[in-house]
Amino acid sequence: MERKNIRFLLQYDGSRYDGWQKQGNTENTIQGRLEQVLSRLTGEQAEVFGAGRTDAGVHALGQVANAHLATDMTEREILDYVNRYLPEDILALKADRVSERFHSRLNAVGKVYLYRIDMAEKSQVFQRRYIYTLGQTLDTEAMSQAAVYLTGTHDFRSFCAGRQVRKSTVRTVEEIAVSCEGTVVELRVRGDGFLYNMVRILAGTLIEVGLGKRTPESMTQILEAEEREAAGFTAPARGLFLAEVLY
Amino acid sequence: MERKNIRFLLQYDGSRYDGWQKQGNTENTIQGRLEQVLSRLTGEQAEVFGAGRTDAGVHALGQVANAHLATDMTEREILDYVNRYLPEDILALKADRVSERFHSRLNAVGKVYLYRIDMAEKSQVFQRRYIYTLGQTLDTEAMSQAAVYLTGTHDFRSFCAGRQVRKSTVRTVEEIAVSCEGTVVELRVRGDGFLYNMVRILAGTLIEVGLGKRTPESMTQILEAEEREAAGFTAPARGLFLAEVLY
Repeated sequence: MERKNIRFLLQYDGSRYDGWQKQGNTENTIQGRLEQVLSRLTGEQAEVFGAGRTDAGVHALGQVANAHLATDMTEREILDYVNRYLPEDILALKADRVSERFHSRLNAVGKVYLYRIDMAEKSQVFQRRYIYTLGQTLDTEAMSQAAVYLTGTHDFRSFCAGRQVRKSTVRTVEEIAVSCEGTVVELRVRGDGFLYNMVRILAGTLIEVGLGKRTPESMTQILEAEEREAAGFTAPARGLFLAEVLY
Repeated sequence: MERKNIRFLLQYDGSRYDGWQKQGNTENTIQGRLEQVLSRLTGEQAEVFGAGRTDAGVHALGQVANAHLATDMTEREILDYVNRYLPEDILALKADRVSERFHSRLNAVGKVYLYRIDMAEKSQVFQRRYIYTLGQTLDTEAMSQAAVYLTGTHDFRSFCAGRQVRKSTVRTVEEIAVSCEGTVVELRVRGDGFLYNMVRILAGTLIEVGLGKRTPESMTQILEAEEREAAGFTAPARGLFLAEVLY
């Protein structure tokens, strides 16, 4: 039987999972669930490669993952099979056959994340898992100004939760767009790669700017400090979405 | 201390509850949770009267409930207290002092329910608890035509899940509006009162019309039959919202 490299486009509600990546013997990860279903499909242990290792509680609108599968099924049949057996908080939007050499993570040239903040005093009942309820008004103009300082190629060590020991912490952030609709502020962050917790620390720092606790100009000092303590808090996982993987 | 009659406007995600009404010794109801919080507030057993007894899994955008509370707190303080102690899937939007004689259920002159159906083949990950994923295309024109036959004052016994034994099953449905946005069909049902499961059976029957399994004209025979078997299936709880209580 032919072995096909299948690329999946995935959406998930990360609320009840320990993140994307399998860790030790916990199966309660998105990767773990997908591997279970694909192993069932082929009858052999499947290995799934994901583009972004989203943390516990983080969601995805457009995660990309691939797996080499020995199956006679068409892409359409694989897609239907996967959606029949995946839990209802994980959905495969597409399943496409790609070149044998395609690797979701290694071939990715960038990613887009969204971070959603609600300024409303009361939490939204039906959106509560998908937004960070701040309950305070943000100065989005100041946040946009601060975003300019953070855009570009920098050493983002201050925005990294300290797992990166010897590896480079230089990344390029192409865009941080701040938009507002009603009481909801949305940050859209596009970059070539992100350090551990980087988007959540960027979001937390920009929230502190929006609250007037930091100035837009102080972003420069944070970058120069090259230590986690210089930056703002880590915004909660529930507001974060991996929106798109760029190739 | 003065005893005040406080009227609450409530929103909730009914997914994990056994409905509004306390039943025997289960505390896992919206009413039960609210009574717990209000009993804690006053130091005595609180009794809460709700306008609509929503079923297990049914949501509310605008449920109304009242309770007589012996407290010196202002309405604002009561609202803040309640929201501090309620779980995050129940939210009080308002707390207003009303006349001693006000009763949420007995004074209600009507209610508005929404029923949401998704025609998309794939379920929506982030909306999955708040919509019924049908995965088939509906003829909303035929559904609107059928809705005309169901509007007005009728004996709705065929649309009742059989708890009403000797009581009248005559109700007035003032409006059933069928609207469509993208793949989502929304039914808006306004009436003076509703029988057990009535909105969900109306929704199920209209869905069967939309699928071409029943004609709009056949609604007349269903009403005339005066038995549950004549009507369509009971649409799932997750698509149903108590939107508004009218006084």
